[in-house]
Amino acid sequence: MIVTVPLAERAYPIHIRSGALTALPDLPDAALPGEIALLSNASVAPLYADKLVAQLEQLGQRVVRFDMNDGEQFKSIATMEAAFDALANARFSRRGAVWALGGGVTGDLSGFVAACWMRGVNWVQVPTTLLAMVDSSVGGKTGVNHPRAKNLLGAFWQPQAVVIDPDCLQTLPPRQVRAGLAEVIKYGVIDDAEFFQWLEANLDDVLALKPEALSHIIARSCEIKAQVVGQDERESDSVGRRAILNYGHTVGHALEAVGEYGVLLHGEAISIGMMVEARLAMQLGTIGEAEGSDLLARQGRLFERCDLPTSVPQGLAWNELWAAMALDKKNRGASVNFILPSRLGEMVKIENVSEDAVKQAMAKPMEPTVFTPKVLLAS
Amino acid sequence: MIVTVPLAERAYPIHIRSGALTALPDLPDAALPGEIALLSNASVAPLYADKLVAQLEQLGQRVVRFDMNDGEQFKSIATMEAAFDALANARFSRRGAVWALGGGVTGDLSGFVAACWMRGVNWVQVPTTLLAMVDSSVGGKTGVNHPRAKNLLGAFWQPQAVVIDPDCLQTLPPRQVRAGLAEVIKYGVIDDAEFFQWLEANLDDVLALKPEALSHIIARSCEIKAQVVGQDERESDSVGRRAILNYGHTVGHALEAVGEYGVLLHGEAISIGMMVEARLAMQLGTIGEAEGSDLLARQGRLFERCDLPTSVPQGLAWNELWAAMALDKKNRGASVNFILPSRLGEMVKIENVSEDAVKQAMAKPMEPTVFTPKVLLAS
Repeated sequence: MIVTVPLAERAYPIHIRSGALTALPDLPDAALPGEIALLSNASVAPLYADKLVAQLEQLGQRVVRFDMNDGEQFKSIATMEAAFDALANARFSRRGAVWALGGGVTGDLSGFVAACWMRGVNWVQVPTTLLAMVDSSVGGKTGVNHPRAKNLLGAFWQPQAVVIDPDCLQTLPPRQVRAGLAEVIKYGVIDDAEFFQWLEANLDDVLALKPEALSHIIARSCEIKAQVVGQDERESDSVGRRAILNYGHTVGHALEAVGEYGVLLHGEAISIGMMVEARLAMQLGTIGEAEGSDLLARQGRLFERCDLPTSVPQGLAWNELWAAMALDKKNRGASVNFILPSRLGEMVKIENVSEDAVKQAMAKPMEPTVFTPKVLLAS
Repeated sequence: MIVTVPLAERAYPIHIRSGALTALPDLPDAALPGEIALLSNASVAPLYADKLVAQLEQLGQRVVRFDMNDGEQFKSIATMEAAFDALANARFSRRGAVWALGGGVTGDLSGFVAACWMRGVNWVQVPTTLLAMVDSSVGGKTGVNHPRAKNLLGAFWQPQAVVIDPDCLQTLPPRQVRAGLAEVIKYGVIDDAEFFQWLEANLDDVLALKPEALSHIIARSCEIKAQVVGQDERESDSVGRRAILNYGHTVGHALEAVGEYGVLLHGEAISIGMMVEARLAMQLGTIGEAEGSDLLARQGRLFERCDLPTSVPQGLAWNELWAAMALDKKNRGASVNFILPSRLGEMVKIENVSEDAVKQAMAKPMEPTVFTPKVLLAS
């Protein structure tokens, strides 16, 4: 299956096919220019890199390799510098293409490397985690973290192609599959009530990693994101269409920043963020009382079935959380804006939300019971 | 005087006016969005920053300041990180504009900071050196150096406006004025024989810093570069129009890289590079024997009047120079391409030039006498 991201002269195909990593699909010439820098990480490379390199070499490509450490804490300028050194040592030219093999961290960092190397080279994404498949591989947002905030530095840089092999999810640690489902559920809430209902009906198949169910959620998520990105490529206006993708992310990013990117996976931070922001929507009245309770409960139930956390961890310093939200890219100066549901499948933007309101939505424990994040004890 | 860089929806004005720094010209709203990060350097800031900040504050702008160290060796990722820290500490938002006050190093680095901060913010250039006025302030090339090669990392990022006050040149160290003239002379060779002749006739007025002469060479240089950049914004094809701007730069950049950016000023490396590449043109026959000798002699005479070096410094390791040329962004893999004159005012591109040919052009001392780079002993 091919989903096209509609960006005029920068349109690109997302190939979604079981076995795509074993037998590459037909790719644009720009993806195979003769020289490839394959950027991967220490966890993913042993599983897929050799197989991929062999195919690329058979296609006449010279392949330069660089494996970064695995983990959000390595999505840093320091890791970029190590990648730049590797490319410089290999005399990687401006005609080459960077291929990213790995999850969102590898993809975001590799894309930023591609954007900066000799002022920009071509780029192909091969996402191996569910989160990367349904989120970061679409839309051209690249970047690294700053100690002060996630993704503070980066570029909009569109790939020439994306290759998704859902079979990768069979060997992905379960905690990572479930974290990716937070973003999948998000697409239902922000844009597609029917898809949300499909998830409620078919989540067991997804959790059992049934291939058809996986392909469906990946393709539908990519379609929704591609359509949103096509309408607002550079998130140029904070009231633009693309902002709806940030549901759950203002709070989620702050949780990650304060936790120093080590404790919560991105998807886990987002599931908590979506719960806090749904409560905030009810408090601020962007959604009616009955509809809000229904959304909150159904969203929470899906998260619980995925073993995703829904309440804010204890012991975080409020002033640090608030400072991280105020530095979020969507905000101007000291005010904090939110994208909140007005009903299932529809969002509105609310500007200048007060610190007290956010604090209140954050502090309230989830009803009827406080979630025990047992998943945090797993690998 | 206003020169417009013709880039469709990214077109921007270059204001050239004596006293422009004392009384800012009318600028687009995007240049004055309410929040400004003024990036300057330790040499230039004491001269102009306070005056500029006072005007910006009077225009209702909140100004965040960051001064970098002065010098090509500080055009590095490390300096960018320091700037990012300063912006993060000041909670500089994505709606702000970065203003660059200084020479080419400050401008290139500030533009790259603007391109990367929250995936890109607006940017205004206030060049204070002749080199920055006539070269780096036009065209949107931003970046920093890598130990392996100059400008290896960067982005194409267009400013919203450029403000040039030729009065700055009255206090610029003479060595820097003269270095800037290398690029001015380059514009004559690559695109405008008449301007070259004007320089031969009026160089004394320029060297005496007569305001009309300075305004003329700045405006004409900006016009030529703006027109070239408008035809080929991203240097997307190495045979594209923009490549003519690289005359003298393949050799010049290698000299800078091997000298670790500390010994030669950029313009000094370019004057040497133009001499070597003109000899190479004669060797390879892109220019006739008589025309080539004439060009070489006239170009060399202008450089000598400017006290610019014309022969390669002794004691540089050839293999290092050649490796730096091979890594130049214009080259694919191990082959080295050159942009060479076919006559005064016209260039051609030659691909796959042999190591021997370049070595020969490089080694030959300039006729009739070997230049003594006494200017290198000055400040």
